[in-house]
Amino acid sequence: MTCSLGDIAEHIGAELHGDNDCLIRNISTLEDADSDSISFLSNHRYIKQLRSTRASAVILAKEHLDDCPSYALVTDNPYLGYALAARMLYPQTRTDGGIHPAANVHESASVDTSAYICPNAVIEQGVVVDANAYIGPSVIIGRDSVVGKDTRILANTVICNSVIIGSSVLIHPGVVIGADGFGFAEKPDGGWIKIPQIGSVLIRDDVEIGSNTTIDRGALGNTVIERGVKIDNQVQIGHNVYIGEYTAIAGCTGIAGSATIGKRCRIGGACGISGHLEIADDVILTAMSAVNNSILKSGVYSSPLSITDNRTWRRNVARFHRLDESFRKIREEIRQIKKN
Amino acid sequence: MTCSLGDIAEHIGAELHGDNDCLIRNISTLEDADSDSISFLSNHRYIKQLRSTRASAVILAKEHLDDCPSYALVTDNPYLGYALAARMLYPQTRTDGGIHPAANVHESASVDTSAYICPNAVIEQGVVVDANAYIGPSVIIGRDSVVGKDTRILANTVICNSVIIGSSVLIHPGVVIGADGFGFAEKPDGGWIKIPQIGSVLIRDDVEIGSNTTIDRGALGNTVIERGVKIDNQVQIGHNVYIGEYTAIAGCTGIAGSATIGKRCRIGGACGISGHLEIADDVILTAMSAVNNSILKSGVYSSPLSITDNRTWRRNVARFHRLDESFRKIREEIRQIKKN
Amino acid sequence: MTCSLGDIAEHIGAELHGDNDCLIRNISTLEDADSDSISFLSNHRYIKQLRSTRASAVILAKEHLDDCPSYALVTDNPYLGYALAARMLYPQTRTDGGIHPAANVHESASVDTSAYICPNAVIEQGVVVDANAYIGPSVIIGRDSVVGKDTRILANTVICNSVIIGSSVLIHPGVVIGADGFGFAEKPDGGWIKIPQIGSVLIRDDVEIGSNTTIDRGALGNTVIERGVKIDNQVQIGHNVYIGEYTAIAGCTGIAGSATIGKRCRIGGACGISGHLEIADDVILTAMSAVNNSILKSGVYSSPLSITDNRTWRRNVARFHRLDESFRKIREEIRQIKKN
Repeated sequence: MTCSLGDIAEHIGAELHGDNDCLIRNISTLEDADSDSISFLSNHRYIKQLRSTRASAVILAKEHLDDCPSYALVTDNPYLGYALAARMLYPQTRTDGGIHPAANVHESASVDTSAYICPNAVIEQGVVVDANAYIGPSVIIGRDSVVGKDTRILANTVICNSVIIGSSVLIHPGVVIGADGFGFAEKPDGGWIKIPQIGSVLIRDDVEIGSNTTIDRGALGNTVIERGVKIDNQVQIGHNVYIGEYTAIAGCTGIAGSATIGKRCRIGGACGISGHLEIADDVILTAMSAVNNSILKSGVYSSPLSITDNRTWRRNVARFHRLDESFRKIREEIRQIKKN
Repeated sequence: MTCSLGDIAEHIGAELHGDNDCLIRNISTLEDADSDSISFLSNHRYIKQLRSTRASAVILAKEHLDDCPSYALVTDNPYLGYALAARMLYPQTRTDGGIHPAANVHESASVDTSAYICPNAVIEQGVVVDANAYIGPSVIIGRDSVVGKDTRILANTVICNSVIIGSSVLIHPGVVIGADGFGFAEKPDGGWIKIPQIGSVLIRDDVEIGSNTTIDRGALGNTVIERGVKIDNQVQIGHNVYIGEYTAIAGCTGIAGSATIGKRCRIGGACGISGHLEIADDVILTAMSAVNNSILKSGVYSSPLSITDNRTWRRNVARFHRLDESFRKIREEIRQIKKN
Repeated sequence: MTCSLGDIAEHIGAELHGDNDCLIRNISTLEDADSDSISFLSNHRYIKQLRSTRASAVILAKEHLDDCPSYALVTDNPYLGYALAARMLYPQTRTDGGIHPAANVHESASVDTSAYICPNAVIEQGVVVDANAYIGPSVIIGRDSVVGKDTRILANTVICNSVIIGSSVLIHPGVVIGADGFGFAEKPDGGWIKIPQIGSVLIRDDVEIGSNTTIDRGALGNTVIERGVKIDNQVQIGHNVYIGEYTAIAGCTGIAGSATIGKRCRIGGACGISGHLEIADDVILTAMSAVNNSILKSGVYSSPLSITDNRTWRRNVARFHRLDESFRKIREEIRQIKKN
């Protein structure tokens, strides 16, 4: 969509240095931009690219204005400005309502006339699909589930039965929501007996869920994902997990059953969070952290080891596995020396 | 399903303290229970909730009987009692046999009349589907595969060709079984040549497999999952892995090719198990363990670091990366002191 | 397929010790082989199995010829010889071109007559499917995407819109390519605003991608997977990642946004690679490595801890969390001793 620079400046709340009527047709990196482009600088280390950009205009902070060779849109938060400008230039295209002839909608399901159901989607009995919802190709919505208005569920995702999904939710392809949690009791003879998973999953409004992520239903009671939570790809969320609003979870993280995560947390990629523990509001976990205790205070937490060359690492690991023993020995040697 | 307390007591083998004819309609946590509910206490730390529960009856151990404000079902293993009671109150609903008109069954496939094939399922040539099996919507069963009786394969799962699945298996949505293992030979020029993966996968009876888990076919010979194994979501199992009976594997764990896992192991979430190694029977791995050597003796094993605040962690990691060097220096200093 | 030993020797470039006309019908491990089989020895530790094999012929290095009880095919690289022989004995079966009546192909899509489209596949508007391509059951190809010649996309995979896939690519079931990257700007009130992901994904020729792997589209510009890259199951690749040619990535690895990986790297299973960093050509990462800094030199790198028994591990971890403090104390004690 083509927009004038003046309209963009107004939309993102920036101060325009340049031509109000200059037409912008795309948004690009500083490096790839051309005379149809607006770009942005949100990280000081790209200052060199700013100086040589061919963009028509750049969204940036006041401190970088002197280095800008083009028109400028000055704002306190250029990254937010970029996000807002991109949404203006690339608006979500709306699909007309309707049910594709190759979709499979049970007669007892209720689909709003403004919702769109793609080919090979299966909508089971008792399902409700609200206004402007989009159900992608080969999506399965299990019986008695509810899909809120403006919610988009993309290709091949599976929503199991009785799952409640709010409005303006975006679910990427290959997601599974509401499958059984991993719950078994040990039999006296050593085998396992499955525990029926009779709870469900509640996904509140404005949640986004990445490709091939899985969210299990509760054993008793529900798994709950609160408003505005953002979940990346291949995240695994166990039964009866609770995630507070606006928390963001990066890819490949696993959260075991009955963990309670606070509001506005930022959980890095490939973290592992054990079950039945609590994480406070505003906790930041760096990538690949292993959380096996509750974290009751906001702050930044870490656990894995950073990378090193393999030879040094082997020696250090060998020491690590004798760490306690070695400390005791050294302490003892010092004690002996002091005695003498 | 409504059951009398007497029937539940008998079914789970518990001693009833209360009214035989009291009707139970659901199972709930101690906190959420009402007068239609039975609940359970399997963990001492919920004793407070026991004292204030509104459940009609609670399944518990003898030692907690005095704290129980309601009827009680006394048993040595309340968690198993809960599992059995839940199965009684929430029996698996049976689907009548049949092939949905929107399913796609090859003429050479053999589907038992008591099996049910959902819309958009694809059953390829030579497939056998046994009695009472359930094939969910958009499930693909590749040519010459076999699905045993009472086995349920849920939505969007893919079973590749020539895979043998036993009876009473439960496979959750989005699973892929029998895709090629990751096998390549290096070409002299540095590229890769794919090795045909000509083995298959055998899944024995009573196995459960979680959402979006992947199990590769063997390169030569088969990948084998023995009877009663329970696998959680997003687990990755490489080619020619062997998993012994009743082993349970929590979510996000990866097992590399040709690893052999014993019987009755419990593998925590997000573990990584290297290939071509052996894990004995009855091994317990705590979550996020990295197994790069065989474990030849039963026991509890661990490897990752637990969580700490980021500042302390940074200092410790810096020390860790000089750990071997530092130990040598301290030893040398002590030697020098002793000399003098 | 049945082949003569002479033909196999010629095809794999090996020196034949034995009967040119001996017929080979399958390839097996040394242990499972029978008189119809060829086998191979690529690892010295299987020498015992070599001595007792019932194979008709074995592919091996010259040094093991004396231990071989059968005909032998001698080559410098027996593993490559095995790969080539397996490909000869188990050639890829070709499907005739055509569109299954239960496939759903948009009228504006262009499908080569030699390509095959399986039941329930959905080919959206503007898609191009080139010669001999195979689109599996329930695969979704989003609008304006391109599938190169001889490329095979297996069951239930989702290719989002405008993705370009080269020729001779093999994509296993359940893969998602081109879903939105994980990109949000923080709102002043603490919530998130989604950044449109307007780039795409380029997959070059001869790439293989494992089951349930996810590859996100670029935010601005493209995510690029270069020629000959091999990716295992359940790998997560973030937006704007670049992977150089012939790099191999084992299962469960996650690569965060805008990471640049060199050529011919070998990335072990379950590694975590942070975003906005660079990994040089020819880097080897052992399994479960956490990469949070650029690696600018080829070599072998590692980071996690290896496994130990849980009791020792607990003590070592406790020491680790006091590691910096403990070193300071010991140093101070030594200083005090020296003074006196």
